[in-house]
Amino acid sequence: MRIITTKNLLLESISIVEKAVPSKTTLPILEGILFLAEGGKLTLISTDLELGIETSINVDVLEPGSLVMASDTIGNIVRKLPDSEVEIVTKDGFVVIKSEGTEIEILGLPQDEFPQLPEVDKEQEFTIPDTIFKEMIRQTIFAVSNDEIRPILTGALLEADGDKVTMVALDGYRMAVKNNKLLNDTKISAIIPGKTLIEIGKILEEKDEIIHVFISKNQILFQIGETIIISRLLEGEFINYKQLIPSEHNIKIKTEKSKLLEACDRAALFAKDSGKTIRFEIFDDILNIRSNSEKGNVHEELKIEKSGGDIEIAFNPRYIIEALKVINNEEIEIEFTTNVSPSIIRASKDSGFLYLVLPVRRR
Amino acid sequence: MRIITTKNLLLESISIVEKAVPSKTTLPILEGILFLAEGGKLTLISTDLELGIETSINVDVLEPGSLVMASDTIGNIVRKLPDSEVEIVTKDGFVVIKSEGTEIEILGLPQDEFPQLPEVDKEQEFTIPDTIFKEMIRQTIFAVSNDEIRPILTGALLEADGDKVTMVALDGYRMAVKNNKLLNDTKISAIIPGKTLIEIGKILEEKDEIIHVFISKNQILFQIGETIIISRLLEGEFINYKQLIPSEHNIKIKTEKSKLLEACDRAALFAKDSGKTIRFEIFDDILNIRSNSEKGNVHEELKIEKSGGDIEIAFNPRYIIEALKVINNEEIEIEFTTNVSPSIIRASKDSGFLYLVLPVRRR
Repeated sequence: MRIITTKNLLLESISIVEKAVPSKTTLPILEGILFLAEGGKLTLISTDLELGIETSINVDVLEPGSLVMASDTIGNIVRKLPDSEVEIVTKDGFVVIKSEGTEIEILGLPQDEFPQLPEVDKEQEFTIPDTIFKEMIRQTIFAVSNDEIRPILTGALLEADGDKVTMVALDGYRMAVKNNKLLNDTKISAIIPGKTLIEIGKILEEKDEIIHVFISKNQILFQIGETIIISRLLEGEFINYKQLIPSEHNIKIKTEKSKLLEACDRAALFAKDSGKTIRFEIFDDILNIRSNSEKGNVHEELKIEKSGGDIEIAFNPRYIIEALKVINNEEIEIEFTTNVSPSIIRASKDSGFLYLVLPVRRR
Repeated sequence: MRIITTKNLLLESISIVEKAVPSKTTLPILEGILFLAEGGKLTLISTDLELGIETSINVDVLEPGSLVMASDTIGNIVRKLPDSEVEIVTKDGFVVIKSEGTEIEILGLPQDEFPQLPEVDKEQEFTIPDTIFKEMIRQTIFAVSNDEIRPILTGALLEADGDKVTMVALDGYRMAVKNNKLLNDTKISAIIPGKTLIEIGKILEEKDEIIHVFISKNQILFQIGETIIISRLLEGEFINYKQLIPSEHNIKIKTEKSKLLEACDRAALFAKDSGKTIRFEIFDDILNIRSNSEKGNVHEELKIEKSGGDIEIAFNPRYIIEALKVINNEEIEIEFTTNVSPSIIRASKDSGFLYLVLPVRRR
């Protein structure tokens, strides 16, 4: 193999595929990136056997071929190369990287051990703009469970029916739901591992590109420009999330998101000792937020608009703060039923985002 | 005590004094900041018993008084306050912090336990512009030893004689020396703990302010605007650093700092296994830099101007990289005598900076 490209192109493509390289693995070959040079293209491939990424760049291929280099080694080298042309050539079992006055030789990894990415049957297909998909991930991913005891909850549900697409994540304490319109009618349902969504979220650059998504029984494939991401899907039935959303409420308040977020953030300072909770006391047109601990107390007072009665209800502040952070609108609404049943947070202006949070029972 | 100020003023002053608050201490009161309100001023004081910082801001003092609050608690609170007016008032043993709709109560710490900052006899005095002093710290502090076996080397020598001031740090493997002109003749000598210099470096804002420095036998006091920093000095004799600087050399090369820095940085990638060294091979007008390891080899080729013969010499790359990073000039010179005696790095255009580094003997 012998190719000529530039530092920047190479670095960009390595930055994409290194997201699937496992940080710890018992299979050393997975620490490598496969480089394939052919027909004016260099293709880089990585996989941790659950998530695989493949991306291509246009390069001068002087001699086609392929090789595997350890991801951290080649990443560190390319980051430190001069901002210039780079030649990569294989020589006597070594890979040689040349640029200006620099010549670096590294040992390749055994290429025949590198696993193939799985083929994905293109049973179901739909398309979605990258900006919309990135936002769907951002507004739900924080609610994905980290708890392997219920593996299904470590993924998010991606569901489309007609011209509506929905992403749902929940962890037993709260649930984030994001709806969007699709341009074309479609019908799909898949549970995507949280890790896959996190890495896709990082790769998506919001260049107003259309993502092509293909779904088979166990795999999902995302095609984003010259990049392909393949992930296994989680098996099993997702929770019937629609059933969890209360159909009515007794109390609804309207308030400013930024002020509420800052108030919860301060109240959280002293929530560590008090059962990790902050108290909402809603009385007339005032929301009082309180926390108590041995170290001190916080009292926040916010003006609200309210319909319905008064209520006292306690929350884990993190569950409120994380949701408020992903809402883009400034005016938000919270609906309460009782202080032991779920509350709903959403933007006043419909943004397709809905968040359900369980209160903490007072002791 | 009762004062009114703003979030920003308060935060700025807390950020200054919290630099002397120890992260670990067996004396809990040292985790606090002393607040003194009197005569239109709020003074904040902190100390870890080696380093003490005091800073003042103009505030509305409605009721003079004093209190001690845990540094991390008050720091976290003030950071999260609205960008607005803040009132601090003592009430029933609590400190109450009010701002807009926020009211936070915290327990104060026992004020009578808070140690006094030492008095510094103003035996010796000199003045130096903040920009110059900050640069002297930056160009030497990285060479201060972390090794408590020779405590004297954990500090830097500050020496002035006539109109010349010098800061020197060395750790047994390399030495950084920075000279500057002073406006007034003076004669001083003090060994300042590295930690003190690091914190002063962070506090100095390069506002073209004059620093007043007072030195007694065991203490040094820096007055920077409304901030006073007091530190103990290290006791003992500093190494006679002038004696270490070779008076002549056999070989001198001139090269571009940025290119040399980048080349060493790349060579360092594979220096970990090869006795942690990189090799300089100087031959005619070429500097070859090489490193070898089991994982790979680096070869860098740089054009140089040279006087004197050829040489092969090995270095710990970190000792070269750290020095090159603090040199501001682009054209630098390196002087060699033999490959077992110290080399000297400096800017071609005299910048008052001199760096001595010991080579690594080849095995």
